[in-house]
This record gives sequence, C-alpha cells and structure tokens, in this order.
Amino acid sequence: MTTTRRAFVGASAAAAAHVWVPKPVTGYTAEDIIGPVTPHRAGISKSELETPALCVDLDKLERNIAKMQRTANANKIGVRPHAKTHRCAAIGKLQMAAGALGLCAAKLSEAEALLDAGIPNMLMTTSNLPASKIRKAMQLKKRFPGFIQAVDYSQNALDLNAAAREAGISADVVIDVAVGTRSGIPPGEDAIRLAQLVDKQPNLKLRGLLSYDGGVQHVAGFATRKERALAAIEENARTQQRMKASGLNTEIFSGGGTGTYNIYHLVPDFTDVQVGSYIFMDMQYIAIGNADGQPVYDDFEPSLTVLATVVNNRFPGRLTTDAGAKALTINVPRAGVIGEPGFDYNAGSDEFGSITFKDARKEWKMGDRMELIVPHCDPAVNLYDYIYATRQDRVEAVWEVTARGHSQ
Amino acid sequence: MTTTRRAFVGASAAAAAHVWVPKPVTGYTAEDIIGPVTPHRAGISKSELETPALCVDLDKLERNIAKMQRTANANKIGVRPHAKTHRCAAIGKLQMAAGALGLCAAKLSEAEALLDAGIPNMLMTTSNLPASKIRKAMQLKKRFPGFIQAVDYSQNALDLNAAAREAGISADVVIDVAVGTRSGIPPGEDAIRLAQLVDKQPNLKLRGLLSYDGGVQHVAGFATRKERALAAIEENARTQQRMKASGLNTEIFSGGGTGTYNIYHLVPDFTDVQVGSYIFMDMQYIAIGNADGQPVYDDFEPSLTVLATVVNNRFPGRLTTDAGAKALTINVPRAGVIGEPGFDYNAGSDEFGSITFKDARKEWKMGDRMELIVPHCDPAVNLYDYIYATRQDRVEAVWEVTARGHSQ
Repeated sequence: MTTTRRAFVGASAAAAAHVWVPKPVTGYTAEDIIGPVTPHRAGISKSELETPALCVDLDKLERNIAKMQRTANANKIGVRPHAKTHRCAAIGKLQMAAGALGLCAAKLSEAEALLDAGIPNMLMTTSNLPASKIRKAMQLKKRFPGFIQAVDYSQNALDLNAAAREAGISADVVIDVAVGTRSGIPPGEDAIRLAQLVDKQPNLKLRGLLSYDGGVQHVAGFATRKERALAAIEENARTQQRMKASGLNTEIFSGGGTGTYNIYHLVPDFTDVQVGSYIFMDMQYIAIGNADGQPVYDDFEPSLTVLATVVNNRFPGRLTTDAGAKALTINVPRAGVIGEPGFDYNAGSDEFGSITFKDARKEWKMGDRMELIVPHCDPAVNLYDYIYATRQDRVEAVWEVTARGHSQ
Repeated sequence: MTTTRRAFVGASAAAAAHVWVPKPVTGYTAEDIIGPVTPHRAGISKSELETPALCVDLDKLERNIAKMQRTANANKIGVRPHAKTHRCAAIGKLQMAAGALGLCAAKLSEAEALLDAGIPNMLMTTSNLPASKIRKAMQLKKRFPGFIQAVDYSQNALDLNAAAREAGISADVVIDVAVGTRSGIPPGEDAIRLAQLVDKQPNLKLRGLLSYDGGVQHVAGFATRKERALAAIEENARTQQRMKASGLNTEIFSGGGTGTYNIYHLVPDFTDVQVGSYIFMDMQYIAIGNADGQPVYDDFEPSLTVLATVVNNRFPGRLTTDAGAKALTINVPRAGVIGEPGFDYNAGSDEFGSITFKDARKEWKMGDRMELIVPHCDPAVNLYDYIYATRQDRVEAVWEVTARGHSQ
C-alpha cells in the first residue's frame, strides 16, 4: 500500500505543479472572501480560499465523465452514476449531459433532494423501511415519474404496492438481488419468487433487477478483481436468465462500480454500471491497480482535493495542518499530500492533521498551503456544504453539495 | 450554582425559539414528517423520526450541564465549554445560562457562526493562519467584544496586532502554550517571550494563556489519568507562574477537557476547563473509567444517541441497519447498541451498519428501530444539520447544528 501511495503521489506532483506556484488572479484578494461564510464567490483564485476547502479540478472531472461514458458506449452498456459519491446536483447534471441513463441514490432523502434539484431519473438502490418511508417514496414517484424503487423482500413489495395504490400511481420496481449478506434478497429461488410477487401487484411495474457487490470494487489487481467480480455475480446472472426465461421483465440489470466498470459488460444482458468514485478518485481507489497490471489505478484522474494550511512547523519531521477528521474522515489509506510522497498524514484528530516525514521536497512554512487527495471520497464530500469547481488556478463555480447529510 | 430543571426549560425554549413549535404528541403520525426534509417538526413522537436521526435526551443533557457547573463551582474554577463538540447555539446558550464564562471554538468559521447566533463570549483556541484569516478574526472582534484570540508564535502576534490596528480595535489575546507537539508554543522561555511580545503591542491586550492536552483526556483509569495530566501540565504551570511573577497578565489560565474536569483545579491559578464531550458522552469517553476506580466513566450520562432502523435480518447472527459511516463515523470504540451489549456494530460501510452477534436479547425484525451511542461525539454531530432534543418519547425541540461543517 505504501509503495502505491508513494508511486502515485510522486507521479502526480508534476500534474499538480500549478498548485505550488499559484498564479495571481487580477482583482481578487483575500478580502473578497472576508465576510459571511456563504455565499462563496466564484471567480476568486484557488489560492485565496479559506482552508480546509474541498475542490474539484474541472478539466479532470470532465475527462473522467467523458471517459466513463465513452467506455460504456463501446461496451454497449449504460452509465447510471451513483449520487451517493457526490450528492451534488451540478455534478449529476454533467453526468446526465454526457449520456447517463439517470442517477442512483442510496437513501430516500438523498434521492428527494436531487430530484427536487432537477435530476430527472433516479434509481433508489435500497428498499425503504419502515412503511412510512415507503409511503414517502411513493409520494416522490408521483411527483417524479423517473423514480425507480428497489425492493428486497416480500412484505416490502406488498407495502410498496399499497402505498402506490394510495398515491394513485404505478410504481417502477427493481429487485435488489444480493451479493453477500449486507442487503438484498439472495439470488435464486427467493429472488425469482419476489420478482413474481412484484409482477403480480396491480400498482407495481417490474423493471428488472440490480446487484451491487460492494466487496469486490477495491480488490487490488485488475486480473484478480475481474475474476472475483465475475465469480461473485455468477449466481445473480443465472437468476436474471431464469427471470427472463420465465417471461419476467429484466430490461434493467444494473450494478457494478468504479472498480468493475470495465468488467461487468461481460455479464450477459447486463445493462448499466452504477459507478460513483470515478469522477473524483481517492486513495482507496488509487491503490487497487489498473488493467495494465500497474499498482496505481489511473483509469481516472484524481480530480478531488482538499486544500489545507500548515499551522505548526516547529518540530523537525513534523507538520500540523488545519485539516483533521472533520475535513477528511479517518478512512484508510490515509490522505495523500500532492508532491510529497514521503508524508504520512494522520487525520485522527478532529480539527488538525498531523504529518510525520523523513524527507520533504520543500521547506514548509507556517501558513503554507498543501493539497490533499482524500482517503475515501463519498464520506469526505459529505462533510462539506460546497465544492469549489476550479480550472487552473481559478474558481469557476461554487457547487452546493445538494444532499449533504441526507442519510435518511 | 445549581440550575433547576425549570430554569433549563426556560433557557431551552428561549434558545430554540426559532424552531420551537410545541405541540401535543397525540395526533402526530409518520405522515406529519412526510414532505421536505427540513424544517422538522417538534412535538412529534421520537418513534416517528426518520432514521438515522441524531437525538439528545434533554433530562440527561440538563443534568450533565448542571453537574459540570456545580463541580467547577465547588472547585472554584470556571467552565468554558468547547463548542467544537456540539457546534450548536441552542446548547451553547444552555451552557451559558448555567453559568459558563463563554464558549471555546476550534475554528474561526465555527466561532463566527456561534457569535452570530447569539453566544456572547468566545475564546478561539488556535491561532489563525494565514494573515487573511487573522484579518477576518479582527473583523469578528470588532463586531463581538467578547471574542478572545489565541496566538502561538511571534509573527502571528505581529500580524494580529496589525490587523487589530487596521480594524481600529484592541484585541484580547491568550498565549496557546503547548502540551505535546500538535499546536501551541512550547512552555518556558519561548512562551514567556511571546507573552512579552504580545504585551508590548499597542493593539493587543494580553489576557493570559491556555494549555490543552488532547492526549491525556482519554487515558483509562482516573488515578493514572490524574497523575499523567498533572505531570504533563507541570511545565506549563511553571510558565504561568513565571509570567505572573514578571507582571504579565494571567487572569485566564484555561485548558483541560471532560477527562480532566475534576483534576485541573489542582493546578495553581488555573481558571477554567474547556470541557466539551461531558454534555453528550460517547463510547470513547465511557471507556476511560471513573474516579471510583470503575471501568465505566459514569460521571456524566450518555445523552446523545443515533436512531437506526433494521433493514436486513435474513442471516443468523447478523443485522444490517441504515446507519453507516455517514451517520456515525468510523471512530473506535464502535457504536454501542443500547440494550444489546453483545452486539458488534461495524459502521465501516458508508450507508449501512453491519451488526454481528452471538446472543440477542430480543428478536430483531425488519423495520425495527434501535438506539446507538456514537463512537466519538464531535465528528458524529458534525454529520447532522439538526439535533432532535427529546424528553421521554417526545421531540421537545429541533436544534440546528449552527456551525456544522464550519471547519475553516
């Protein structure tokens, strides 16, 4: 893991060169952002942002989105990006504009916020509990025809039908077929019976199934990941074939993630990938290795960074920054400091980052700024109200994290 | 000063006036909270809240606040609660009403949000970097006379003086004297020279010093913790004595936390404890042991909980809930399930909690709700926009987490 970290952050130093030598942007100074915390102003220099600041590099983000869509097109499948990664309507709209079928949501309040913000199609990937939440989901479906709900057990399907009838609608439904033990109905007979039950309900319309394998996305090494991903989904694929053979609708067979976006098209009748992290990347994904057998996963570019400021350089081999657990989370692998592959960044303190190092490539002073790749993008983004969308040194837009904290 | 329950209710109502909508429980059903995510309604039953929901038990919170103030009064020191724990103006007002000297803030944007929300006195415990942030701090001081700024190195003190002059004010300053290597100026000669430098600046007013020992708060066992805490702060205490002997103002000598609230009054001239977690408690603090030698720290009651819902009970010895890392953080010790001491709660997944157990005290069904004690309160609270303040089964108030996400 350390080798991978070092290889990666070292390699990206050149790419991030502009961070170390900020270009002045005429007319904008720190005074422009003195004042209320929000609204933040677009147009200012990235180097003037108060830290910790969550930034996304637009050039990289756009290339990531384009590459994913291009690859899926070539593989004759669709892209249904998972919004749990960004929770941001502005980014969702970029994904839709590139050709995505719609977005996925993990939680109902997340789906609601993004539908309200103009995302037209939303697949809710987990069943809702209890019945009150199902009723809320059906109210949402009434307002937004592009809403599809996953179900994973029979009572849930019956409650959903009752709620759909109550709302005077027909609800689009997919069966959440499990890979593992976390959520979803086990593949095989159980899943098929649930699909038949859904198919028989007057107010439900069966659209197909989804199968998400959370465990396989971060398996290191493309060959191993491919083998394990295809083996793990085999029974689900057989279940899909049996559903199809028995005349059940399987027009949707959705699943996969950033670690398997170029693997699942090999599954027969598979329709679309629920990719999330590819837009941002993080230390967890960078460590999984690419299709050429390299230790660094470089299919997509690390567009997401957190800017931090050095607040203590007094002790040799140590630095303290203003970005701790509340700015980065404590996921592992730890945050990577761009340009300083030898830095070990400990975000275990809530308010401070504690760096230890043997060698540094520059002399770090009080008030110096550094740029970090986050350990794990989803929960890190969820800490911020805004993402600064930058191009070169300039903040081009300030995007609200529309569904931040919407975990209900 | 013992604060009565009635005094607290009054303060609570006044503090939360903008969200206070007292209504009878009768007649409220899940339908009442179907609709936009915010504003949430007070008056509903706790059992109708959508999960994950962050709740604070008002009876316990009030007893914790009263006990801390009572203990400090008896020990002839003050309470200056750290707002980084709750980031919530309503709770800060309860602490002030109980007799707190003011609050502490870890970050400038946190201080700003709480001052704007009506907290009159605020001690910013970390120096601000770069100079632009110092200027912002001085603008804040101009608006709020009760603002005190920590400094920990000479350039910072000079920048602060310049910014104070620019703002046309005199700034109240304390020296952040380090315990350990994270932040602050080392005790002894360095700290005293900095205090003298501050004292000489025309636009700075030296008020004293602070010394926060983050490492000692969670040392297990009261006797060990006491010994280590007093040993670690000894040099800082000597520094304070020397400052005082040389005529420097040390009217503030602040520090300590929930783990040392009943220890630091033994430090000569110590003035107040910067306690945070005592209001809520969490799994980290519960594990440190109390003054009677018991393994459970029960000086304060665990008032803070997260409500979660079971979304999978299919596999023996396993349950899945809707509260993962985005609802709890991945700090350790892991979340505790109230009433189920044998449950091991893994919040490592962003969206789901995965429980394993050998024995359960009840049969857990799909849709059942459970109540969790969070691993570590500060970053967990920072995930939520609202805290449901409950008494018995009833939501008495919905409090905004005023400075949520304000880590700048």
